[in-house]
Amino acid sequence: MKVIVNIQLKNGVLDPQGKAVHHALSSLKFNEVNDVRIGKQIILDIAESDKAKAHERVTIMCDELLANTVIEDYTIEFPTC
Amino acid sequence: MKVIVNIQLKNGVLDPQGKAVHHALSSLKFNEVNDVRIGKQIILDIAESDKAKAHERVTIMCDELLANTVIEDYTIEFPTC
Repeated sequence: MKVIVNIQLKNGVLDPQGKAVHHALSSLKFNEVNDVRIGKQIILDIAESDKAKAHERVTIMCDELLANTVIEDYTIEFPTC
Repeated sequence: MKVIVNIQLKNGVLDPQGKAVHHALSSLKFNEVNDVRIGKQIILDIAESDKAKAHERVTIMCDELLANTVIEDYTIEFPTC
């Protein structure tokens, strides 16, 4: 089963990488861009057919390793296809 | 308007970061994990109310700056909320 974990910096946490990309886009004349935030997307393939159980296990993985919950928020998704 | 760009390495392209996370998860006894791929998620806030136009502009941004289309695939999403 495929599970997607999206990890983003919390609101208010400075995102220098996003700022740099924003600046680069402005230099390329993409002036309609107001803000850029950059996060991670982790795609896990796990041997678990029960969605609820998979969600529970991936939540533990996020808390223990994948995300830094002090400064990052994460969401867990199950792709429909 | 918020636009989400998900960037992933193409299938077949080696992902050392994913391998390292997979190894770390195995060390933590998450043995159900078969594979880990790590990509980027970029959240853009752009001053454009037309979805089709926004999609077109973000596609150009991806091709010119955000993604390395030789080794990466990208998808563009519009969050529903």
